[in-house]
Amino acid sequence: MKKQLLKLALVSALFAQLPLGLMAQNNSALTDEIIAHANMLGQKASQSDLAYQVVKSLTTEVGPRKVGSAGDAKAVKWAVEKMKAYGFDRVWTEPVVVPGWHRGPISAAKIMLPFEHKMAVTALGNSVATPKDGITAEIVQFDEYKDLVAAPANSLKGKIAYISFRMEGTGLKGYSYAGQARHNGSVAAAKAGASAIIIRSIGTDDNRTPHTGSMGYADGVKKIPAAAISNPDADLLESVLSYNKPVTVFLKLTSHAADPVTTYNVLGEITGTDEPEKAITIGAHLDSWDEATGALDDGVGVGIMMAAAKHIIDGGKKPKRSIRVLLFAAEEIGLLGAAQYVKDHKDDMDNHILGAEWDSGTGYITEMEPGVGPMALNVVREMGAVFAPYGVATSQKNTAKGDSDMSRLGNAGMPAVNLISEIGYYMDYHHTANDTLDKVNREAIKQNSAIYAMFAWMAASMDVDYRK
Amino acid sequence: MKKQLLKLALVSALFAQLPLGLMAQNNSALTDEIIAHANMLGQKASQSDLAYQVVKSLTTEVGPRKVGSAGDAKAVKWAVEKMKAYGFDRVWTEPVVVPGWHRGPISAAKIMLPFEHKMAVTALGNSVATPKDGITAEIVQFDEYKDLVAAPANSLKGKIAYISFRMEGTGLKGYSYAGQARHNGSVAAAKAGASAIIIRSIGTDDNRTPHTGSMGYADGVKKIPAAAISNPDADLLESVLSYNKPVTVFLKLTSHAADPVTTYNVLGEITGTDEPEKAITIGAHLDSWDEATGALDDGVGVGIMMAAAKHIIDGGKKPKRSIRVLLFAAEEIGLLGAAQYVKDHKDDMDNHILGAEWDSGTGYITEMEPGVGPMALNVVREMGAVFAPYGVATSQKNTAKGDSDMSRLGNAGMPAVNLISEIGYYMDYHHTANDTLDKVNREAIKQNSAIYAMFAWMAASMDVDYRK
Repeated sequence: MKKQLLKLALVSALFAQLPLGLMAQNNSALTDEIIAHANMLGQKASQSDLAYQVVKSLTTEVGPRKVGSAGDAKAVKWAVEKMKAYGFDRVWTEPVVVPGWHRGPISAAKIMLPFEHKMAVTALGNSVATPKDGITAEIVQFDEYKDLVAAPANSLKGKIAYISFRMEGTGLKGYSYAGQARHNGSVAAAKAGASAIIIRSIGTDDNRTPHTGSMGYADGVKKIPAAAISNPDADLLESVLSYNKPVTVFLKLTSHAADPVTTYNVLGEITGTDEPEKAITIGAHLDSWDEATGALDDGVGVGIMMAAAKHIIDGGKKPKRSIRVLLFAAEEIGLLGAAQYVKDHKDDMDNHILGAEWDSGTGYITEMEPGVGPMALNVVREMGAVFAPYGVATSQKNTAKGDSDMSRLGNAGMPAVNLISEIGYYMDYHHTANDTLDKVNREAIKQNSAIYAMFAWMAASMDVDYRK
Repeated sequence: MKKQLLKLALVSALFAQLPLGLMAQNNSALTDEIIAHANMLGQKASQSDLAYQVVKSLTTEVGPRKVGSAGDAKAVKWAVEKMKAYGFDRVWTEPVVVPGWHRGPISAAKIMLPFEHKMAVTALGNSVATPKDGITAEIVQFDEYKDLVAAPANSLKGKIAYISFRMEGTGLKGYSYAGQARHNGSVAAAKAGASAIIIRSIGTDDNRTPHTGSMGYADGVKKIPAAAISNPDADLLESVLSYNKPVTVFLKLTSHAADPVTTYNVLGEITGTDEPEKAITIGAHLDSWDEATGALDDGVGVGIMMAAAKHIIDGGKKPKRSIRVLLFAAEEIGLLGAAQYVKDHKDDMDNHILGAEWDSGTGYITEMEPGVGPMALNVVREMGAVFAPYGVATSQKNTAKGDSDMSRLGNAGMPAVNLISEIGYYMDYHHTANDTLDKVNREAIKQNSAIYAMFAWMAASMDVDYRK
C-alpha cells in the first residue's frame, strides 16, 4: 500500500490535491474518528491550566537547573516522578556527559575612570575566570562583532574589547546576528590581543538584568574572560565613552571549567498499540540557565509537553504508534543532550517518525510549518486544517527541521513540524534573572498544549511514513 | 493697591470672573509682554534637549547619590558648578545634618525549606542589620499591613513577618496605601515579636529589581531588620507558601546606622530687578537611592529646573522678582533637606512667594493645580491658560501645597502650584536598580522644562501676592 502511494506521488505532483475520499480507505487517512478525538483533547487542553501548573511545579519545586548543577539533577528526578505520576507507560533516562562549568561566586564589573560606576554583569557560559584580583584595563568599543573581527592583531594588547551592538527583536539585527558577539566575540578579541571581552547583553529589554548564554573558544586562540552587561549599563558605558576620555573598566569573574558531569535526557512514552517501536516525539529542554527559574526557557516547553501527554493519557484511548515526550538535557550549552540522543539512537532513528519541539518562550502558536516527505505532506496539511480553529495557519513551506534540540534529530533524518509563535517579549527575559513564572502567558500555554496534544494524537494514530 | 484688591475679593466671590481689563492696569497683570516672553521661552525649551542632557550629565558624571554618600557630595559639587556655568546670579549651599546610614556589602535572602531559592532583596533605608550570620526562621505571611498590625503580641516570636500586598499604579492600592508596609511594617512586626520583616516590593513591575525606600522605627519598640523582595520573588515565595508546609527563610543584611553626616541644599538664583528678596522657588531633589543613577527619581526634576532656569537666563530679560532653583538634600529619608530649609528660612518664608517642585518621574504635564490666595487665583488661572497649548489643563481645585519637598514650604505658608503628570511606568522603576537614563521620556521632559520656565518667568514678572 505504501509502495503504491509512493508510486502515485512519484508519478504525479498532483497527489497533494487528491480527493480525501481516496485516502480515507487506508490507515494513512486522518479519519473523522481521529479528528474527533483530537478535537476532544484540544478542547480539554484549551480549558485546562495543567501546562501552567507544570511550569509552576518545576520553577517552584526545582528552580534554576543549569546543566550539571544540583538543580539539574533535581529537575531530572522531578521529571521522572512527574511522568510516573501522570501514568506514562514507560519512563526512563539516558545519560549525557557534558563539560562542567561553574559561574563561581563573583561576577563584578565597574567603570573606574573617568566616572566610577558599578555595572550589572554576568559571565557568559563557558567563560574562564579573570585573574584573582580582576582585570583593570582601558576599554575599546566596537559597533558590532564584524568590526572586532577586523581589528588588527595586537591592536588590543592589554585592553578590554567591548561590543556595543544592540539586538533587535526581529529582522536582520535579531538573535542570530547579534548573538555572534556572544558566541564568537572572545575569539575575535583574543586574536586582537585583548585581555577580556565585555558585550552588550543579547536581549531586547531595558532592565539591569544582564543576559547570559553560551560562548565558545577556539583551538590555538587564548581563552579570555567573556561577560555581558545589561542594556542600561551598556547605555551608561557608552555615555561615559562619549566624553572622549580614556575609559577604564574593572572586570572580575570567578567562572571556570570543571570536570565532566553526567546529566540525563528524560523520556516518557505512551506506548502505541500497533507499532510501539515507532514514535512521534514531542520535546522541550529540561535544563535552564542559573540566573532564574527558567520559566520561559524552557519551563513552558516542559509544561506544554507534560500537559499534552497527560491529556492524551486521560483521554482513554491508546495511539497506534507511540508518543514520546523527550525532555532534553544540556540544550543551553549547545544541544548536547540532543547530540547524545542522536548518537545513541542512530540505529533506530528510522523509528522516530515525526517530531516537534517547543523552545520559544510564551505566546500563541500562529503557524505550523511541516518538514515531511512529499507524500506525507497532504495528510500533515490536513492536520494543519484541524488546528485552524485554534488560530494556527499552515505554512506553504515544507522545510521544517525541528526547533532547537529537535533540529539535531531533524538533521539526522527525522521528519518534523515546527509550531511557530510570535516572539513577544521573550528576548526581554531570555537568559536573565527575570525569566520567572509571572512571565508565562497563562492563556496562550493552554492553546500551546492543545495543539501539541492534537498534533501528537493525530500523527500517532495513522501509519503514514512521514519521510516519504 | 493690594488692600483694595483684597477688599474686592472679600466683598465678592465674583472676583475670579472680573474682566481682564480691570487687572491690566496694575502690576498684578499678566501682560501681553510677559506672555510673549513666556511663550518664547516655552517654544525654545520645547525644542531643546537641554533638560535631558542635564539628567545625562548628572547620571553619568555623578551616578547614585544616596544622602550622605560620596556620590551625594559629588552631586552637590556638580550642581554648584553647573549652576555657575549656567550663569545664575547667585549660587550657594546650605548645610543639612542628617542621620548616617549604610547599606553595607551584603543583602541576601533565601528560601531554605521546603524548596531552596535565592531571592532578589534589598534592605529598606534605615534598617538595622541582622545578626552577623543572618536570621533563619519560619516566615508568616500577611495579606497586608493592617493584618500584621492586628497580629497579637508574641504571636510572631522567633519568626519573620512577610507582607504580600501588591501595590497597584493608581487608586486605593496605590503608593500611599501600599507604602505603609514599608514605612511602618517593622514596628508592627516587632510588636508581634517577629525577628525581622520582609515585604513585597512597593512597586508595579515584574522585574527582579527590588524596591528600596525609607522605613522607620518607633521609640520603645525593638528595631528589627526590614527588607523588600522583588515582585517575582514575592510570587515565588507565595508559590512556595501555597504548598502549605512550613517555609523557612534566611535573611542577612549588613545595613546599619552611622554618625550624622552633613549634606547640602543647593540653591541658584536669577536675581529679580525690582524685589530681589522675593522669590519664585522651583525645585527638585538632588539625592537619590543607591541602587541606580536615580534618573527618574529625581534626576528628571533636576534636569527640568536647571534647563528651565538656563532658558530664562539665555532669554536675555531679568524677572522683577527672583527665580530660585532649590535642589533639596535628603528627600529620600523624609524630606529632611526641606525641613532644614524651612527651619533656616522661617524668618523670610514670606519672601517665598510661590513654589513648585517636580518629583514625579517622567511624562507630560497634563494639569496645573493652584494653591494660592483667592485674589491671586485669577491671575494664576490666566497663567494656566498660557499652558493650555502645551497640553496642560488648569484644575478647578485650589488646594495645592507643593509636591514632595516643596510641601514642607507649602505647609509653612508658601503658596504653591502642583504641575501634575500621568504616573506612567514610574512605579515600575522607582527606588530600584532600574532607575536609569534610558527610562527618561526625552520628549516629555522638553515640555516639562518649557512649563517650568514659563511658570517661573510669568510668576516672577508680576507683583502679585500669591498668598492673598
